[in-house]
Amino acid sequence: MPEQPKDYNKVTQSDTSGGGHGPLPIRRPNVDSQRLMGDPIALPPGIDSQTFKNFILTVADVVGVENVTVITGPEHHAKDHYMDPSKTHDMFYINDEDYFISSAVVAPRNVKEVQALMKLFNEWEIPVWPFSIGRNVGYGGAGPRVRGSVGLDMGKNMNKILKVDVEGAYALVEPGVTFQALHDHLVDNNLRDKLWIDVPDLGGGSVLGNTIERGVGYTPYGDHWMMHCGLEVVLPDGSLVRTGMGALPPPGVDPSVPADEQPSNECWQLFNYGFGPYNDGIFTQSSLGIVTKMGIWLMTNPGGYQSYMISFPRDEDLHQAIEVIRPLRVGMVLQNVPTIRHVLMDAAVMGTRKKYSNSDKPLTDAEIDEIAKKLNLGRWNFYGALYGPAPVREVLWQVIKQSFSVIPGVKFYFPEEMPENQVLQIRHNTLQGIPSFSELSWVDWLPNGAHLFFSPIAKVSGDDAVAQYELTRRRSEEFGFDFIGTFVVGMREMHHIVCIVYDRKDPEQRRKAHQLISLLVHDAAKAGWGEYRTHLALMDQISGTYNFNDNAQMKLNVKIKNALDPRGILAPGKNGIWPQNYDAAAWKVPL
Amino acid sequence: MPEQPKDYNKVTQSDTSGGGHGPLPIRRPNVDSQRLMGDPIALPPGIDSQTFKNFILTVADVVGVENVTVITGPEHHAKDHYMDPSKTHDMFYINDEDYFISSAVVAPRNVKEVQALMKLFNEWEIPVWPFSIGRNVGYGGAGPRVRGSVGLDMGKNMNKILKVDVEGAYALVEPGVTFQALHDHLVDNNLRDKLWIDVPDLGGGSVLGNTIERGVGYTPYGDHWMMHCGLEVVLPDGSLVRTGMGALPPPGVDPSVPADEQPSNECWQLFNYGFGPYNDGIFTQSSLGIVTKMGIWLMTNPGGYQSYMISFPRDEDLHQAIEVIRPLRVGMVLQNVPTIRHVLMDAAVMGTRKKYSNSDKPLTDAEIDEIAKKLNLGRWNFYGALYGPAPVREVLWQVIKQSFSVIPGVKFYFPEEMPENQVLQIRHNTLQGIPSFSELSWVDWLPNGAHLFFSPIAKVSGDDAVAQYELTRRRSEEFGFDFIGTFVVGMREMHHIVCIVYDRKDPEQRRKAHQLISLLVHDAAKAGWGEYRTHLALMDQISGTYNFNDNAQMKLNVKIKNALDPRGILAPGKNGIWPQNYDAAAWKVPL
Repeated sequence: MPEQPKDYNKVTQSDTSGGGHGPLPIRRPNVDSQRLMGDPIALPPGIDSQTFKNFILTVADVVGVENVTVITGPEHHAKDHYMDPSKTHDMFYINDEDYFISSAVVAPRNVKEVQALMKLFNEWEIPVWPFSIGRNVGYGGAGPRVRGSVGLDMGKNMNKILKVDVEGAYALVEPGVTFQALHDHLVDNNLRDKLWIDVPDLGGGSVLGNTIERGVGYTPYGDHWMMHCGLEVVLPDGSLVRTGMGALPPPGVDPSVPADEQPSNECWQLFNYGFGPYNDGIFTQSSLGIVTKMGIWLMTNPGGYQSYMISFPRDEDLHQAIEVIRPLRVGMVLQNVPTIRHVLMDAAVMGTRKKYSNSDKPLTDAEIDEIAKKLNLGRWNFYGALYGPAPVREVLWQVIKQSFSVIPGVKFYFPEEMPENQVLQIRHNTLQGIPSFSELSWVDWLPNGAHLFFSPIAKVSGDDAVAQYELTRRRSEEFGFDFIGTFVVGMREMHHIVCIVYDRKDPEQRRKAHQLISLLVHDAAKAGWGEYRTHLALMDQISGTYNFNDNAQMKLNVKIKNALDPRGILAPGKNGIWPQNYDAAAWKVPL
Repeated sequence: MPEQPKDYNKVTQSDTSGGGHGPLPIRRPNVDSQRLMGDPIALPPGIDSQTFKNFILTVADVVGVENVTVITGPEHHAKDHYMDPSKTHDMFYINDEDYFISSAVVAPRNVKEVQALMKLFNEWEIPVWPFSIGRNVGYGGAGPRVRGSVGLDMGKNMNKILKVDVEGAYALVEPGVTFQALHDHLVDNNLRDKLWIDVPDLGGGSVLGNTIERGVGYTPYGDHWMMHCGLEVVLPDGSLVRTGMGALPPPGVDPSVPADEQPSNECWQLFNYGFGPYNDGIFTQSSLGIVTKMGIWLMTNPGGYQSYMISFPRDEDLHQAIEVIRPLRVGMVLQNVPTIRHVLMDAAVMGTRKKYSNSDKPLTDAEIDEIAKKLNLGRWNFYGALYGPAPVREVLWQVIKQSFSVIPGVKFYFPEEMPENQVLQIRHNTLQGIPSFSELSWVDWLPNGAHLFFSPIAKVSGDDAVAQYELTRRRSEEFGFDFIGTFVVGMREMHHIVCIVYDRKDPEQRRKAHQLISLLVHDAAKAGWGEYRTHLALMDQISGTYNFNDNAQMKLNVKIKNALDPRGILAPGKNGIWPQNYDAAAWKVPL
C-alpha cells in the first residue's frame, strides 16, 4: 500500500490516476461479466473508466457476476418509484436525480465476502457506501454521500432471521431482515402471542438498518437502539468484531471454522455491555464499521392491549396537550412512544391535497379547520395505547382521561368507535408492532410526492413544541409548502418530525425544499435545537451545528475515523465526518 | 514532544531517564510545598526521585499545594480501613498492601485544571489514574493498575450537584457527588416526593463513578448506564468534549467563557444520542477520557410502593425460582432489578461468622440449614418491590404470588411482618432509592474482613444459575471459603455476584482469594461465562477471555486507545488495554 492516501480534493472525475492501485493490465470480461462493462453514470472519484472496469471484474470474482450491477443510465431510470427503490440513489432526490448516485451496487453473499470486499476497497482506494434495504426514506434512501461510491447492498443476500429466542425474548438478524419479515416469522411460527416486535411507520425497512440509524418506533420498545443487544461488525480493514458478550466464545468452538460462522455466546443478545469500553454506539450513524448481525430485544405479550386516539380541537391546544403529556410519559403512565400529529398529516394519509383544496397556496387556518371538521379530527390528534391486563389498563386510562380532560373540547376514541379514521386503524396495528405499508401514503399529498424529514429534538414542553411548530410552519409556508408534522414522544424528549412534501419531478420545488430545510437547520441551531438524523445533503450543515468547544466532538470523531479507516474508504462524509484524505469543502452540496 | 513514546517495559523503578521531559533543573520547594518532598512508596515507572519532585511541584502550581498528597509510608498506613479509604490504594488488597498504589494523589479544583494536568502528564509521560470517590470496593478501590501512577482524585473538589430538573426528571452531577448526597439533596429540597434516585448497595460511592464503571442498582432504573444521559469528558490530550445534545451550544454562548463553564443545551440530559456516532459507551470501563460531568435520569415517584421478601426453603429451589423469575422479569411484572440471595449473605449482614459457628472449615449444608432456620430465612431469599398505585400493585402481586407458589414451602413477607430481618429492612430502603451504609456489613463475616467480587453474567435460567452456583461454591470451599453470593436480575440476564470474603491481614488468605478468583475466571470462560467488571489484578486475565476471532475486540480497543492517547498516559492497563508504549507481559500481576 502507498504511504500517503490519495488527496481526493485534487481528483476529478476524468482523472486517470487509477486509485491506489495505479495502472493495471486491462482485464477482459467473459460472457457472464460482459454486462458489467457498461459505463456508469458516475465513476468513483479519481477512478478512470478502465480502472473501474478492472475493479468491477475483480469484485465480481468475489461475489459472483449476478450480485454486481453497474449503474448505467437505463438501469437507473427504469426504477424511479419509492416502492421499488433502485437501491442506487435517493428515491426522494432533492438535487439532480443522479447527484447522490452509486457507480455500482454490489451484494455480498456472506460476511466473508464483506471482509474480502473491504480489502479490495482499501487496495483500490474506492469509497463504499453500505445500506441494508435502502429504504432510508426522507434521509437519502440508498444514495451515497460521495457520488460514484460503490453501494454495498447488505440486505439482498444476507437476509436471514438467525434466531428468535422466546425465553430471552430477542431476535438475531442479518441486515436484510425487514420489520415485515420479522413480524411474519413470529406469526408463521405461532409466536406472535408471546412476542411482539416494534415497528417504525413502515414495515418494509431493515430492522438492523433502522436501528443503527437510531430510528424509532411506537411501542414501549420504541427506542430501537436502546433495545438492541450485541453486534457483529466488519471494520474498515476487513476484520470482524463481535461486541459485548459476543467477544467471549462459547465452549467448544472449532478454530478452523471462519469467525462469522462460529457459534456465539449465549448471553450475546442478553447483556449489552460485556467487559471494557462499550463500543456499540460508535457503529451507529457511523462510518466506522459495517454491521453484519444484530440482536434486538422483543417485547413480551403484555397480557392486554388497547389503542386510542385523543383529539384536540384548536391549533393552540398543542401547548397544553404537551404539558399534560410530559409528566404522564416520564412517569410511564403513557407506556409507549405516542405521537401527537398535526391534522394535515392524517388528512394526507386519507387523501391527496386535491381532494381537499384547489388552492395552490399553503392551506389557511380556516381551510385546515374545515378539513378537521370533515374528517372528525382535532387540529392535533394524539395516538397512544395501553398495555397490560384489564385492571392495569383501567387505572392508566382513568389517569390519562382525567389528565387530558382539562383541555376544552378534547375527545377520546377507541378504534372500534372510529372505523373511518384510517390513521387510527393503522396506528392500532403499529402500536402493537404490526407493520404497515400505508402510513407513508401522506407522501402522495402532492403529485410525484416525495419528502424530506426535518427532525429536530425538542424538550417535552408546551413552549418548545409551540415554538418549533410556529417556526417550521411559518418557514414551510414562506416556501409554499403546507406544514405536515408530528411530535414523537420519547421518555424525556420529542422527535419533532416535519415532513416536507414536494413534487420531485419539479426542479423548482426540489430546490425550494432543499432551501427550506437548510434554513430550518440554521434557524433551529440558533434556537439551540439539533436534528437527530438527516438527509445526505444536510449532513455537513447539521454536524457543523454540533460544534461545542471549537468542534471538539467532530475532532474526536475524525481522530477515531482515521485510526480505523486510514484510507477513508468506508462511507466518507457520512454524518459530516470526512476522513483525512478528503477535503470536505470540495464536497459541498450545491443549494 | 519526542517522536517515539518511551518503551516502559525497558524502564525500571531505579531508571533515571526522567520521563518524556529529560533532565531538568532542580526546583526547590517553598514553605508550603516542603511537605510534598517526601519520597513516595512507589515512583511512576521510569521516573527518578528528583524528576518526580520537580513534577509534583509543577502539579502543585496548577492545583494548589493543598490538593497534592505524596504517598509516603506514614501517610499511607494511617488510613487502612474501608470506611475511610485512603484513596491511594486498594483498601481490599489481595497482593501486598502497596502493590497497587499511587505515587501521589492530586485533586483538581475544576475542569480547566484537569485539562492542564493532562497536558502535564503527556509532557512528562507520567501515567494518571482517575477515580471519583475511590469506593470501587471489591474491584480495586482507588488503586491504579500501574504502580506509582498519579491518582487523580476527581471527587474531592468537584462534587457539585449542578442541576436537578424536576420536569425532565434528571440530575447533572460532578464526579464527587455520592448517592447519599444526591438523595439528601432531594430530601432537603422537598423533592423526594417527586423524584427518586437509584442506589447500589452502598450510598457512599460516586453516582458518576459507579455509572461509568457500569454498576447497577435495584429500582426500575437499576441499569445506571442505560439511565445516564450526556457526558462532559476531558480527552487524554486535554481537550473537552460534550456528548450527545451537549455538542450543540444553546443560544447566546459567550465564546470568551471557558468551555467547561459554558451553559449547556437544554436537551443534553433529555436525549442521549445527538447526531453522528454515539460515543458515550467508549468512556465506560475505559481509559479514553475523564468524565467531568454526567447526566442521570431520576425516577418519578411511581405513586405507590411495596417491598417484599420471598423465601425458598431448599438449596435446590434455586433452579425453579429462577425459572419463575425469568418470564416475570422480561414481562415487567417484576418491575425492578430484584435479587435472589444465598442465606449466608443475609446471615453475614446480621452477624459475624463467629456468631454462627466455631468451625474453621466452610459451613456444611446442615450448618447452613441451621442458620436459615435460626434467622427464619430460606436457603435462598428473593427481595423485590411493587411500584404504582394500589390497584396496579395488587394485580402484579397476585401474579407474583401465584407464580412462586409452585415452589413447596415458599413464604411471602412484607417488611412490617419481619422487623428482625435487617436485610429486608435495608432492602426496603434500597429498592426505593434510599441509600444505605450497612449493607456491606457482610464483609465483617471474617476478622479484618475484605472482599473480592467475582461477577459473571448469566442467562436467566435455572440451569445456568445452578451451574454457576455449584461451580463457585465448590471452588470457594476448595479454597476454604464460604460461598456468599447473590443473583441480581436485569432485564434478560443476571449479574451473579460472588463475594469472596477473606482476612486481609492474612497473606495466605489473600493469596488463596486471588488464586480462587483466577481459577473461577478460567472455569467460567471454559463454560462460556464472562465477567462484567473486575479487580485490577484480574483485568488482563478477563479481557483475555473476550478473545473472539483472535482478540479482534482488544485490537479495536487498542487502536482507538493509541489514536486518542498516543503516549499512553491515561490509566494504562485498565480493563486489559495496554497502550503501544507498554509491554503488557511486563506488568503481569504475580499470583
